[in-house]
Amino acid sequence: MNLRSVYHSILTPLTFIERNRKVYAHKVAIIYGEQRFTYQQFASRIHRLASALQDKGLEKGDRVALFCFNTPPMLEAHFAVPLAGGVMVAINTRLTSPEVAYILNDCGAKFLFVDTELAEIIRPIQDKLETVKYIINIHDIAGFNPVDGDEYESFLKTGSPEPLPWLVTDEFETITINYTSGTSGKPKGVMYSHRGAYLNSLGEILETNLTPNSVYLWTLPMFHCNGWCFTWAVTAIGGTHICLRKFHPAKVWQLIAQENVTHLNAAPVVLISLLNYADCPQKLATPLTITTAGAPPSPTLIEKISAIGARIIHVYGLTEVYGPYTVCEYQSHWDNLTTTEKSQLMARQGVTYITGDGLRVVDKNMNDVPADGVTMGEVVMQGNMVMTGYYNDPEYTAKAFSGGWFHSGDLAVVHPDGYIEVRDRIKDIIITSGENVSSIEVEQCLYRHEAVLECAVIAVPHAKRGEAPKAFVTLKEETTATAQELINFCRSQIASFKCPIAVEFTTLPKTSTGKIQKYLLRAKEWAGYERKI
Amino acid sequence: MNLRSVYHSILTPLTFIERNRKVYAHKVAIIYGEQRFTYQQFASRIHRLASALQDKGLEKGDRVALFCFNTPPMLEAHFAVPLAGGVMVAINTRLTSPEVAYILNDCGAKFLFVDTELAEIIRPIQDKLETVKYIINIHDIAGFNPVDGDEYESFLKTGSPEPLPWLVTDEFETITINYTSGTSGKPKGVMYSHRGAYLNSLGEILETNLTPNSVYLWTLPMFHCNGWCFTWAVTAIGGTHICLRKFHPAKVWQLIAQENVTHLNAAPVVLISLLNYADCPQKLATPLTITTAGAPPSPTLIEKISAIGARIIHVYGLTEVYGPYTVCEYQSHWDNLTTTEKSQLMARQGVTYITGDGLRVVDKNMNDVPADGVTMGEVVMQGNMVMTGYYNDPEYTAKAFSGGWFHSGDLAVVHPDGYIEVRDRIKDIIITSGENVSSIEVEQCLYRHEAVLECAVIAVPHAKRGEAPKAFVTLKEETTATAQELINFCRSQIASFKCPIAVEFTTLPKTSTGKIQKYLLRAKEWAGYERKI
Repeated sequence: MNLRSVYHSILTPLTFIERNRKVYAHKVAIIYGEQRFTYQQFASRIHRLASALQDKGLEKGDRVALFCFNTPPMLEAHFAVPLAGGVMVAINTRLTSPEVAYILNDCGAKFLFVDTELAEIIRPIQDKLETVKYIINIHDIAGFNPVDGDEYESFLKTGSPEPLPWLVTDEFETITINYTSGTSGKPKGVMYSHRGAYLNSLGEILETNLTPNSVYLWTLPMFHCNGWCFTWAVTAIGGTHICLRKFHPAKVWQLIAQENVTHLNAAPVVLISLLNYADCPQKLATPLTITTAGAPPSPTLIEKISAIGARIIHVYGLTEVYGPYTVCEYQSHWDNLTTTEKSQLMARQGVTYITGDGLRVVDKNMNDVPADGVTMGEVVMQGNMVMTGYYNDPEYTAKAFSGGWFHSGDLAVVHPDGYIEVRDRIKDIIITSGENVSSIEVEQCLYRHEAVLECAVIAVPHAKRGEAPKAFVTLKEETTATAQELINFCRSQIASFKCPIAVEFTTLPKTSTGKIQKYLLRAKEWAGYERKI
Repeated sequence: MNLRSVYHSILTPLTFIERNRKVYAHKVAIIYGEQRFTYQQFASRIHRLASALQDKGLEKGDRVALFCFNTPPMLEAHFAVPLAGGVMVAINTRLTSPEVAYILNDCGAKFLFVDTELAEIIRPIQDKLETVKYIINIHDIAGFNPVDGDEYESFLKTGSPEPLPWLVTDEFETITINYTSGTSGKPKGVMYSHRGAYLNSLGEILETNLTPNSVYLWTLPMFHCNGWCFTWAVTAIGGTHICLRKFHPAKVWQLIAQENVTHLNAAPVVLISLLNYADCPQKLATPLTITTAGAPPSPTLIEKISAIGARIIHVYGLTEVYGPYTVCEYQSHWDNLTTTEKSQLMARQGVTYITGDGLRVVDKNMNDVPADGVTMGEVVMQGNMVMTGYYNDPEYTAKAFSGGWFHSGDLAVVHPDGYIEVRDRIKDIIITSGENVSSIEVEQCLYRHEAVLECAVIAVPHAKRGEAPKAFVTLKEETTATAQELINFCRSQIASFKCPIAVEFTTLPKTSTGKIQKYLLRAKEWAGYERKI
């Protein structure tokens, strides 16, 4: 007899739904508009989807792509695809046709689920999809023509609501592949394991204090690192998912009030639009925990959020680490500080999650930088919260894992209390006369000028200084400012070696998801020079 | 390069203190009387203890026994022993000298830490300890002569406060051995793994909702399943441990008020003594979560606890499953029920922890019993919350793991909502004319008689019925009752086939921890008959 099987069960998010379909059979798992699914119904739909996929030929390890919004099918697929033995690939809904084609071909998807509103993205590339055998349309809203293929609810009906045996035999097997946004080239397929997804889910519950009474509002896209693993985490704790097809401030405030939402996740820029919206209440009826990432929350944001009775948790991570990896863990002795002081501390990226392990900030020789709040180094990570590698790209994986640590490409300092603070992307840092200049710091300075709508600061070649900062700026409508005015403004705010030596007025190149492509700006400036752009 | 090491880190409670010595460096980790240790100090003491053990010859896998109360050294050992590469064995402080000698020899302990108050238990057996090489005395209170050996604080000083490299290379390595209380024979050494301890700790945090603001009072002995893994769990979340050398109601109420305690664990019998104590407040200043196990909380208990502003969580488990394994997960729709209805539901043992997996109630052929709330079967468990086996006893392990599941020896029913309810120990069930009679049910009936102080009901041989119930009863002082009176009392309450056919007035045989040894009662009655007693 294999005794080990008695005490070694596989860590996988499949346990979450398997447990809660029984424990919370009659509790509401998903709310979407007028729709209500109990945990039992949620599980039955998952079983149907999984068995329907198997019936249509899904074999172990096959990739199943989802190109859709935050609707119930997306949540269902997070459990049904691994239950069927497949690997889920959720695709960013803001991508263009060629980008989507690249991902579908790169991962070799056999199945594709597509929201009919996005059919127009798929239609032009349909004959370029080399591996897709089945397309299932999600008819969530009327008015759009589907792609040739099945319809989601009919497809579900072909499956059985009965539980299926699990096919996962090793907890390091891939559960999902998430493509990076590719600000510097082709998107890469980041592989998540069952074990990693399980532990990251528990990490999210612990750090954001989800409980069975939690009501989680889906403001964050589920295609983004599997919704930072909250797709699994909220299910694990037996909370309630409030699906939201697309973000809109009015809709968000309405749902917060109507459903007594306790948790949501959003980037600071989204939160600002939310708090500045007319419907923002003076005071929330239910305490709300907002987890934010992507940029540090400003003092104003922290103040506004606390004024309405919400609390903010600042986290930091990357696609390669299942979303959030560090948290600016709040210290009770900060209570006595002013909002400005507090916000300075809370703007830091912090420390590892409870379920995390290795977090270091290192120099080029992999030595820890001193915890002086000044010396920059690269953030590197190790442990169960790190991806298992890039799909079909062992070379790039080995590079990202060099020295036995995952290299984030982010530059940070370590403060004396051990909290890290990210200063820049490695490629974006400007090294001028041997001094490091954070492009983010210069950009933040420019944003304080009233005429600046958008800007990007990059390193350009400089005869004496090696390289120097240059700014690319888009002005707000009906404002004016000369290059010299902006340079002088910077000089009044930051050290002169950090100030741009030139300002170019232009529109900024962006990915379809809205991220500025600095590498394109650099490519032009560094033509004929040697620099890894 | 071994890429796997980048994304596979070992699940071990050592990560908890490694993280929080940095994250909560200046936060209070332990309060004990006038003593206060921050997480940094806690970690330094752990490092000192671990390195001192290594200096004195501890080698990987060596057993280190602790025979002491709920004082800081006990908490420190929970991390220091595995950090040094050892296996911790915490011994029940209520055991007798021969029992302690048996355990120390069975596990082959090289080191023994002993509270001086318990020196008198060790002294008579000191020359019988075959493997113990070092004894370290914990001088917690004055007035007791130590055993020959070192003194704890001096021993710590011989170690270094610097972090040590971890020696664990496989997460299934043994971290602790916990001896069963042995109600039916020799105690058995239950092995916990690093992985199991890690996951069970997260399970406790999730099920009892520990947060970094939690203040946990040590009413439960830490030698009991490593304090149900709360030794590690409270440390993992960065809460505060309030050590309590020995349970005393006055002291408990004082600490609850003084330290704003948020969590404690105790059996219902302990809670009753606590709530009936004069110092019990009308209303607690801080919300308190009480986790209870060992017996179902009565309606009165549930009512009293809720009246003072606390909430109760009913859990069930065994030493073999790291303490609690199931929880009577509260359903929000129970809010509308009467206290009596609610307490009936809350008296059930419930469902698996989030971190648990397999839980079944099976017949002799390992088939699930129907979920009818009537049919009894054995509770069997499987997964990461199950021990890795009995120390040095593969035969007994194989028996306990027969059919690929851990056999709890407890009989339960499954209710239609999937919640289990434990009815009896398998050996204690009485099979009379083919009917199962729960000895617990008959005992509960007898306890309702005003003259009964203590009782035990067992099966005795019966010519016609195969076996039949017999009661052993101790009467309260200054009360009287005849055997026939008690039998008649039972007949007025429960079906006559469940009623004792005989009552014997006697004092009951007990283990040194106070558990009634029914097997000794049975041995006498079944002499000359064939029955596994």
